Amino acid sequence: MSRVFNFSAGPSTLPEDVLKRAQAELLDWNNCGMSPMEVGHRSHVFSEMTERCEATLRELLNIPSHYHVLFLSGGATSQFAMVPMNLLRDSGSAAYLKTGHWSKKAGDEATRYCDIHQAGQLIEENGYKRLPREDEIDCPNDMAYLYFTDNETIDGVEFKKPPICGNVPLVSDMTSNFLSRPIDVDKFGVIFASSQKNFGHAGVTVVIVRDDLVGDPLAFTPTMYNYKTHADAGSKYNTPPTYAWYFASLMFDWIKEQGGVEAMEKKSKAKINTLYHAVDHSDFYLNPVQQCSRSTLNVPFTLSDPSLDSLFIEEAKQHNLCNLKGHRSVGGMRASVYLAMTEQGVNDLVDFMIDFEKRNG
Amino acid sequence: MSRVFNFSAGPSTLPEDVLKRAQAELLDWNNCGMSPMEVGHRSHVFSEMTERCEATLRELLNIPSHYHVLFLSGGATSQFAMVPMNLLRDSGSAAYLKTGHWSKKAGDEATRYCDIHQAGQLIEENGYKRLPREDEIDCPNDMAYLYFTDNETIDGVEFKKPPICGNVPLVSDMTSNFLSRPIDVDKFGVIFASSQKNFGHAGVTVVIVRDDLVGDPLAFTPTMYNYKTHADAGSKYNTPPTYAWYFASLMFDWIKEQGGVEAMEKKSKAKINTLYHAVDHSDFYLNPVQQCSRSTLNVPFTLSDPSLDSLFIEEAKQHNLCNLKGHRSVGGMRASVYLAMTEQGVNDLVDFMIDFEKRNG
Repeated sequence: MSRVFNFSAGPSTLPEDVLKRAQAELLDWNNCGMSPMEVGHRSHVFSEMTERCEATLRELLNIPSHYHVLFLSGGATSQFAMVPMNLLRDSGSAAYLKTGHWSKKAGDEATRYCDIHQAGQLIEENGYKRLPREDEIDCPNDMAYLYFTDNETIDGVEFKKPPICGNVPLVSDMTSNFLSRPIDVDKFGVIFASSQKNFGHAGVTVVIVRDDLVGDPLAFTPTMYNYKTHADAGSKYNTPPTYAWYFASLMFDWIKEQGGVEAMEKKSKAKINTLYHAVDHSDFYLNPVQQCSRSTLNVPFTLSDPSLDSLFIEEAKQHNLCNLKGHRSVGGMRASVYLAMTEQGVNDLVDFMIDFEKRNG
Repeated sequence: MSRVFNFSAGPSTLPEDVLKRAQAELLDWNNCGMSPMEVGHRSHVFSEMTERCEATLRELLNIPSHYHVLFLSGGATSQFAMVPMNLLRDSGSAAYLKTGHWSKKAGDEATRYCDIHQAGQLIEENGYKRLPREDEIDCPNDMAYLYFTDNETIDGVEFKKPPICGNVPLVSDMTSNFLSRPIDVDKFGVIFASSQKNFGHAGVTVVIVRDDLVGDPLAFTPTMYNYKTHADAGSKYNTPPTYAWYFASLMFDWIKEQGGVEAMEKKSKAKINTLYHAVDHSDFYLNPVQQCSRSTLNVPFTLSDPSLDSLFIEEAKQHNLCNLKGHRSVGGMRASVYLAMTEQGVNDLVDFMIDFEKRNG
């Protein structure tokens, strides 16, 4: 069987070139006679990789030197507790923008450690969803932080620019749009993203955290949930997920070779515009999000006749277009178009959509 | 360069056959047109693997049905907090056997959540270390649990059988000797082991936990640290470390093909006896552990003349015998002989040791 186009929301498609490189190095990495899987995390060969990996990421996102870059295990979900545990300090309150599935989940976890102030929410107007405008966001300046999810994978909404919150540290879950566009890191207190959407297979989470937010966690914080543990140890306090870290490094190299995050943004916009155009071009397909808030990475869409859903998904699969089923909480379809999805994949999907409509519209 | 013999304590050597299988499947797994890295954790192809994976592990260790088998992220170090958080309940005390580096570290983490009763310690007699005998272990029966490290990788000591502690649940960190011998799971409350020594690359931790110990964690326990979260969700509450899990499954298959844990025990003993024989056969090499407590997996040894250490390590490397340097806290040398280390590797090491002694003794 040939490789398919995989539109899964995560774990998701990876660049064939990167997979081939990992395949070639799997039994012998850099002539060290060992697999990257077998190399000790404190060895010279591994440390050389981790140093280069962090340097490349810092270069890609222009991360200032007063930010730590951590490579952690536990996924983004672990950050839902680590953020309040590390950032609350003497404050009993944090603000959350509840704009979809993942920000709600993060807020729910935080209620176990503090009061939550809802700074804004997903707004529905005439059947279309949008993110709150600047004047609809309310973040009192005594909050420990303002938390938001930059791109909601299930709801298909994405902030075009970060919310403004004065001196309150801004915390952003960028798991699903990490490295898809330049960001001004200086505006954030914490940015985190797990690997399985845009920079690898599941297993490692990047946490970019401003120096002054590290080092004063709640008393009962487990050692492994304390940012300082990992900041002090170069993310090698315990055995880190070495192979996922290695693979992330290959992905950062690949993104750099492709022209960096500016090129990624350009390519992402081109791909996604093709797809939204196909959806908007017909009454057969529907996307529930207002244009101003649409995601550049995840496109949920429905058919005007939902009884055709399973036929659509089945036939798409026969065309090598896989994992288009929508999240169980919203139904319909979802196409996730992460960095590694090719233009060819999106074009094939659009061709199929047009043909499917012709035959069933 | 050809592959070397890697005696690292972890991440450590993996079977060449398993690496080759992973390599062959890296771009297309089970004819699904995707890498195992790209497959969704809730997909049919992945779920088929996880079900078979758990079934194989249950078969290998004869795990009774009233035990959950969890596949978690965060490494064994995360368990140092998860164990007290999940098992303490109304009790304010737990017992720890402090028999080396890792049990001490686990006990230190637990002091943040409860009082620690030291139930026993590593004993030194005439310059040789040993584990406490049964009559030297004191575990009051009002303890929440008795914790011990079955095999201490740095100190090179291993329990020949689990300590006896009446009705107090027994918790064992088996990271470094997991699957190296049959165990009577029924004697334990919790057994855990991370992957990077005996069943894969770093990234997944197996937790075997008795049903009645799941579901009543301390109030501030993060959702991801609650055993129940993962027991209820089949270890798929969030995106698990899918590729490390897949690789663990290949390793369980390999162990089964090799004849299971009984065969692993036989092979491990044969390999390690060859090595201890070489150490004991001469005054040039010294192992600091009494015979009754020696590890079957990790052999720390020193040279009678420590000024030769670096020459030994350098020349060993030239003979393709790598990562023999001892842990920084004890110095000297250490040979870790995990399941995937071949007899050839151990024989080559012993040949080199004899030759090195002849030339330098």
